[in-house]
Amino acid sequence: MSGSFFSQLFTSIAEGGRALLDGQVWRAGGARASVAAVTELCQALVSQRGEASGAALAIETLAAYQTLDADDRAVFFERLLDDFAPKSEGVLRAAEAYRSDPSQANLLALGGAIESPRQELFRRLNMAPGGTAALVELRHGLLRQMADRPELRVVDADLLYLFRSWFNRGFLVLQRIDWRTPAVILEKLIRYEAVHAIDGWGDLRRRVAADRRCFAFFHPALPDEPLIFVQVALIKGMADKVQPLLDRAEIGDPASADTALFYSISDCQAGLRGISFGNFLIKQVAAELQSEWPNLKTFATLSPIPGFVTWLWEMVNSLDTVPEGAEVQAWLRGTADHDAEPPGSALEQPLLQLCAHYLGRAKRNGRPRDPVARFHLRNGARLEQIDWAGDLSERGIAQSAGLMVNYRYQLDQVERNHEAYVNEGRIVTSRKVEGLIRALSWPQESGV
Amino acid sequence: MSGSFFSQLFTSIAEGGRALLDGQVWRAGGARASVAAVTELCQALVSQRGEASGAALAIETLAAYQTLDADDRAVFFERLLDDFAPKSEGVLRAAEAYRSDPSQANLLALGGAIESPRQELFRRLNMAPGGTAALVELRHGLLRQMADRPELRVVDADLLYLFRSWFNRGFLVLQRIDWRTPAVILEKLIRYEAVHAIDGWGDLRRRVAADRRCFAFFHPALPDEPLIFVQVALIKGMADKVQPLLDRAEIGDPASADTALFYSISDCQAGLRGISFGNFLIKQVAAELQSEWPNLKTFATLSPIPGFVTWLWEMVNSLDTVPEGAEVQAWLRGTADHDAEPPGSALEQPLLQLCAHYLGRAKRNGRPRDPVARFHLRNGARLEQIDWAGDLSERGIAQSAGLMVNYRYQLDQVERNHEAYVNEGRIVTSRKVEGLIRALSWPQESGV
Amino acid sequence: MSGSFFSQLFTSIAEGGRALLDGQVWRAGGARASVAAVTELCQALVSQRGEASGAALAIETLAAYQTLDADDRAVFFERLLDDFAPKSEGVLRAAEAYRSDPSQANLLALGGAIESPRQELFRRLNMAPGGTAALVELRHGLLRQMADRPELRVVDADLLYLFRSWFNRGFLVLQRIDWRTPAVILEKLIRYEAVHAIDGWGDLRRRVAADRRCFAFFHPALPDEPLIFVQVALIKGMADKVQPLLDRAEIGDPASADTALFYSISDCQAGLRGISFGNFLIKQVAAELQSEWPNLKTFATLSPIPGFVTWLWEMVNSLDTVPEGAEVQAWLRGTADHDAEPPGSALEQPLLQLCAHYLGRAKRNGRPRDPVARFHLRNGARLEQIDWAGDLSERGIAQSAGLMVNYRYQLDQVERNHEAYVNEGRIVTSRKVEGLIRALSWPQESGV
Amino acid sequence: MSGSFFSQLFTSIAEGGRALLDGQVWRAGGARASVAAVTELCQALVSQRGEASGAALAIETLAAYQTLDADDRAVFFERLLDDFAPKSEGVLRAAEAYRSDPSQANLLALGGAIESPRQELFRRLNMAPGGTAALVELRHGLLRQMADRPELRVVDADLLYLFRSWFNRGFLVLQRIDWRTPAVILEKLIRYEAVHAIDGWGDLRRRVAADRRCFAFFHPALPDEPLIFVQVALIKGMADKVQPLLDRAEIGDPASADTALFYSISDCQAGLRGISFGNFLIKQVAAELQSEWPNLKTFATLSPIPGFVTWLWEMVNSLDTVPEGAEVQAWLRGTADHDAEPPGSALEQPLLQLCAHYLGRAKRNGRPRDPVARFHLRNGARLEQIDWAGDLSERGIAQSAGLMVNYRYQLDQVERNHEAYVNEGRIVTSRKVEGLIRALSWPQESGV
Repeated sequence: MSGSFFSQLFTSIAEGGRALLDGQVWRAGGARASVAAVTELCQALVSQRGEASGAALAIETLAAYQTLDADDRAVFFERLLDDFAPKSEGVLRAAEAYRSDPSQANLLALGGAIESPRQELFRRLNMAPGGTAALVELRHGLLRQMADRPELRVVDADLLYLFRSWFNRGFLVLQRIDWRTPAVILEKLIRYEAVHAIDGWGDLRRRVAADRRCFAFFHPALPDEPLIFVQVALIKGMADKVQPLLDRAEIGDPASADTALFYSISDCQAGLRGISFGNFLIKQVAAELQSEWPNLKTFATLSPIPGFVTWLWEMVNSLDTVPEGAEVQAWLRGTADHDAEPPGSALEQPLLQLCAHYLGRAKRNGRPRDPVARFHLRNGARLEQIDWAGDLSERGIAQSAGLMVNYRYQLDQVERNHEAYVNEGRIVTSRKVEGLIRALSWPQESGV
Repeated sequence: MSGSFFSQLFTSIAEGGRALLDGQVWRAGGARASVAAVTELCQALVSQRGEASGAALAIETLAAYQTLDADDRAVFFERLLDDFAPKSEGVLRAAEAYRSDPSQANLLALGGAIESPRQELFRRLNMAPGGTAALVELRHGLLRQMADRPELRVVDADLLYLFRSWFNRGFLVLQRIDWRTPAVILEKLIRYEAVHAIDGWGDLRRRVAADRRCFAFFHPALPDEPLIFVQVALIKGMADKVQPLLDRAEIGDPASADTALFYSISDCQAGLRGISFGNFLIKQVAAELQSEWPNLKTFATLSPIPGFVTWLWEMVNSLDTVPEGAEVQAWLRGTADHDAEPPGSALEQPLLQLCAHYLGRAKRNGRPRDPVARFHLRNGARLEQIDWAGDLSERGIAQSAGLMVNYRYQLDQVERNHEAYVNEGRIVTSRKVEGLIRALSWPQESGV
Repeated sequence: MSGSFFSQLFTSIAEGGRALLDGQVWRAGGARASVAAVTELCQALVSQRGEASGAALAIETLAAYQTLDADDRAVFFERLLDDFAPKSEGVLRAAEAYRSDPSQANLLALGGAIESPRQELFRRLNMAPGGTAALVELRHGLLRQMADRPELRVVDADLLYLFRSWFNRGFLVLQRIDWRTPAVILEKLIRYEAVHAIDGWGDLRRRVAADRRCFAFFHPALPDEPLIFVQVALIKGMADKVQPLLDRAEIGDPASADTALFYSISDCQAGLRGISFGNFLIKQVAAELQSEWPNLKTFATLSPIPGFVTWLWEMVNSLDTVPEGAEVQAWLRGTADHDAEPPGSALEQPLLQLCAHYLGRAKRNGRPRDPVARFHLRNGARLEQIDWAGDLSERGIAQSAGLMVNYRYQLDQVERNHEAYVNEGRIVTSRKVEGLIRALSWPQESGV
Repeated sequence: MSGSFFSQLFTSIAEGGRALLDGQVWRAGGARASVAAVTELCQALVSQRGEASGAALAIETLAAYQTLDADDRAVFFERLLDDFAPKSEGVLRAAEAYRSDPSQANLLALGGAIESPRQELFRRLNMAPGGTAALVELRHGLLRQMADRPELRVVDADLLYLFRSWFNRGFLVLQRIDWRTPAVILEKLIRYEAVHAIDGWGDLRRRVAADRRCFAFFHPALPDEPLIFVQVALIKGMADKVQPLLDRAEIGDPASADTALFYSISDCQAGLRGISFGNFLIKQVAAELQSEWPNLKTFATLSPIPGFVTWLWEMVNSLDTVPEGAEVQAWLRGTADHDAEPPGSALEQPLLQLCAHYLGRAKRNGRPRDPVARFHLRNGARLEQIDWAGDLSERGIAQSAGLMVNYRYQLDQVERNHEAYVNEGRIVTSRKVEGLIRALSWPQESGV
């Protein structure tokens, strides 16, 4: 045995995982398994035999599953739904017992009767080296099937329940990503970046240069797979335009920065949908940066506004009542006819006001219309500033008329902001944004 | 940020953990928290505020808990029992709904109603760095209180449920322990060794020498804490005496060994009671050793027989009917009167036969009487050999008349043996042991 | 202090080194140093002050040096030549003393008088974190100046002497390079690959896929800088064409390979010119591969023949006497007039024979004419096979008429081959190559 | 290939090294080599054959050497002296050539003629994995023989010259030692501690507790072997007594410390005698501590005074002229007759004054008499304070009448102090010590 104790401690998970994900076990034979065979293996795994076999049977089962094509997997998911469900009569009996005597013992018994055998199956599959990665992949496939087969939601509920437990914040590890990170991880950043596409390795290198920071959460059982990552620029003053930030060749001196600008945050694992890591990530990264660079005064995002133009269309008739409303309508119609052109400067004030209204007032079910706004406001950020000509990319113009927005995280305010948001539906805004909102007299939205 | 990506990836968990366990956070002020304060923190943690606060509130809560003394902790556990239980009316309503319509949706709703807020509390506490270690320690305290307060079993059930999920085999990492292992871990082996006490660092060094192997399971969130470890000697032939093995100064050549003898296996974490790691550990270690030393032919234990003398006392009157029964009775009575003396050689055959019967036939509730036998036989081992004068330590004589036993793991048989054991209650024995059992005509035990 | 002992042990060197190489120390002020200032720092460093200052003065001196531009560096090298040379009178006196009494004491004294103060200067500069890298870079600059200033060879001799000691084989570490290697190292492979250019990250990824191996030597004081690396393909049969090897998209199964083909070996550090690592690298990699893949039977290169066409031109008149000689002359003249075209198949035999002769017989100063041949034959390889149409790239056609060559390393023969080569100038060839040589009756070369 | 790139990078050296040091290679056969055989292997190694064989021949040679017993090694060292020396006639010829034309070329040639083949032999031996450790051990043996065979000094000069180059400060790595350090290294601290013996693992654990620091230098080629280590206590105020420091069970809070007290520094490798690491170590550790704990104001040692009582004896007759001189003489004579007793308090002032004089004035060859004083004063420390009853151990009383001394390192003064010491022989003292010196009128020492 060689080398460092602690690095070894964690590499064995990785190794097994790769072997399994590469499908080496089953592929050796080249054969494809049948759904019946996979189901049988699953049944053996939850039986006594599974208890004695250690990880061997779990490995075999997952390897067999991985030979199934998409159609077979759909059939297999139905098997999971039907053959590994809790027994209805057992649940009814336990529920009845609890009703007649609501004791702790009966409650425990009811809980036991309800738990689906699928959960035990998934737990045992996880014993295989690389099992966690395989299960995340399995759920990814399941989610795709659920579009057509809503009944599979019950299967998904079991997986999601387990994943929530396994991917608890306490098990996640924050890791800085830079140019010393293994290529196997860096290439995933290129693949997973969802906000501002990374244009190859040269672009990636710029994004991890001295005046930038990139952090990701990892889980020990998925060491090559970032779960989520965020990109930060250390700059002077809160940036209000994204293209200069992305294009800038010159590398600044982080020691003279006063602002940490979060300009991209991307989830990586489709199979972990519904488990939120972003809130924790932003706050921990802010704390790390504050500790590394005490001069930082402002922590803020430069964020897209994906729903603004869609909302403008919904409101298109009401625009009649707004100053410059006709010009806004004209620009909107123009974007429908031909390639998007950035709105002219005459529209700056009206669009800023409308956007402030959209982000700060427009709601559905008591929550902001804009999904990115919902995320940051729920996290406790403040709606700080609307940025004219913030994103003049084709997508930026098409979805938000080129506007962007800064959400600001003041670490000593996020708890209070969050509570106001969750309990009262109140959105905390800067004075500047509040001014924009008030400048516009606009009909009260109905049906909020 | 320096150094190796993967080793860094996993050290941050460890760091936070140590800080928390050292109680640095709360201790800084030196104050002691009240049970009411801790309970209030717990309530905040499961509320909206807990969602926004990131790990900060979890840290504060655990730190406050750690200032409680044993009595206060007992009161706090009662608060967990009463204030964080699922609402009975909610459960009843959901049970009723399911009874009238046993749909999947109603099943999911019932599951939701049953889950106790304690589980969410524990999951959020786990977000703190070092939270997992703190929760394992919390359960350790809880288990001690449960002796007097059986109602706390419900609280324990929630913790145990989470731990079963978190400490899933798939997250455990097998790690070899040797003289290059950090001292902080080695000292824990000395502390936790439960079978044959390690007599200081010199003895420990011998136990990790070239002809020995020591392996432990670790969990990424508890990097300094082995969960369980096993000690193996690589020798020629299956040893039948433990003292020469422990005392032997000379270091053998593992390349010429044909037998891997598992002579000690110890659980380390009192707070993880009820979660079994030994089965997996033995099998994975056997596989590792086989791969490192292809010459190994035999994988077997040299195990204590903790219940043999106790059982002899239960059977003491029946001994009249056995050859040399009077001498066995005389020896038994002698051990009661004065310091235990090893039985004379005249008793070898009778005691071997009685012991074979005890291990291979004597049952209670359909399972072997001996706890160590239950463990290995359930794992799929075979009852291989009874060893005369195997352990002549004071304890060895007192509990098993100096006898020991070898259980043998034949990797291609363990599944079959396990199924025979679990399904039919059948104990697989070697021809030799079977011979000992048959040599003794002994009244059929009643009430098995 | 966190994390793994051994990985930490070696990262501090790297960190200091980066800071220094980035020139952070001096750059902070932005100033440029004068040659006089740098020389003065050097003098202080070899004086008493240097002894007490620890690494601080070494850091300052290197940082100041790094602000010099190329012209100033040239002047500074002259200062090193003149101001840090051994004192002539001292040497003469010690030589005289040894002549009159050739005692061990006088020999030691003479050795002391001869050692130049430059060596002590370089040793003290090396005390700075990153000093080794800075000195390698300094020598790189020195070598460039030596073209015009041959007198600097004396300065270089001191550096080379130290580097030979510091970069002793015993301090080099063989490291596999693959897709888990940090990007900061991988990008250097792209930059340093000298034989078959790596066309970006996609191409690099193919070159470290499962059926390839890449190994490099590192020195602990230069952890981000490979010294030399070799690329190997694990294939069936000895490849005789390089383009299919480079282009092949499909990844083979290394377990079924019988041949390790070394298809590229590149030195990385211009500042280490004259220190040979290739011999050790090839042999250690062959040993590693043999141990990982016992099925490997053949270890061979697929090598360029950089001097073949040049030699053909030298021999162009003699080609009259050779079968197909006129066609060879015609092809040669064609390549001079226009873009190189591969020779037609009619030329296969004549060119193979000529090339066999060139590699196996043509000598200058008793050594093969071809530099790559000199390298491998001196290492103890055998001239195994000449490959028609082995490299049809523009360069391949221009320098070797598209031919390539396989040198074969038979691990149990390399010592003998090496001795035959070094002591007798004998080139060991395969029967096949010997046949080609004999097939051609060719005038004995004169002036060998 | 798994795991972290950088930790792997450095473990291979270690592995090879262990195998070699264990003597596994040669021992396998169990045979003992003859001196003639080892010498022959050495000759092969410096010949052509050695060049081709890679490390194999170096391994074989070292393994063969390691089978020699002490007597054979002595004979072998004579072989190194005679058979691997530079050729006298060659040196004479080159010296003559330089004399008639003192050109650079002739200087280089003379340097080449002087270099002994032993150096090339040692460099080639170092190519073996573990070669560096083996050579350090070889020099250890050589140094022991040199007591009786002074002519071996020439062989040692070659080794020392190489080691000075290889163990250059730039290749050393400072590493903190604590309870997470591997046991294989910790046990060496127990073995090597030379100043205040470490009484087993419990004592060691105290010495690496939170209010202590231990740092060592390592060399990458000897990863398990500290070269030198220093122990530091973080305390309030400069300690003047060592026993309370060593015995203190309570662990202080380092954050409230203002003084870093260096209370022990021990060289570890007898084979590296004559290569000084202590100066660098103290200064780098002071810098590390200052950076970790900005509150530290004082960096000082608590040091033994090994030569004080010896010097008192030399001066015993002069003591007549000193106040309380008779009592000092009486105590001195008492220590000669029976077990040492601490001097009574009446002797405090006289002994403090005498000791101040001894450390601050008494010289031989222009340097302080006391070896520890020479070390710290040369490093640039200040003679700060003499401590009455500082070390009341038997050894402390016997060698220094129970006195100890603090040397103080003021990082901004060490260069100046060092230059004053080296150039002018001036010892910088505190006002307090200066007062003690002046209080004593004492005859000027002659023959300094």
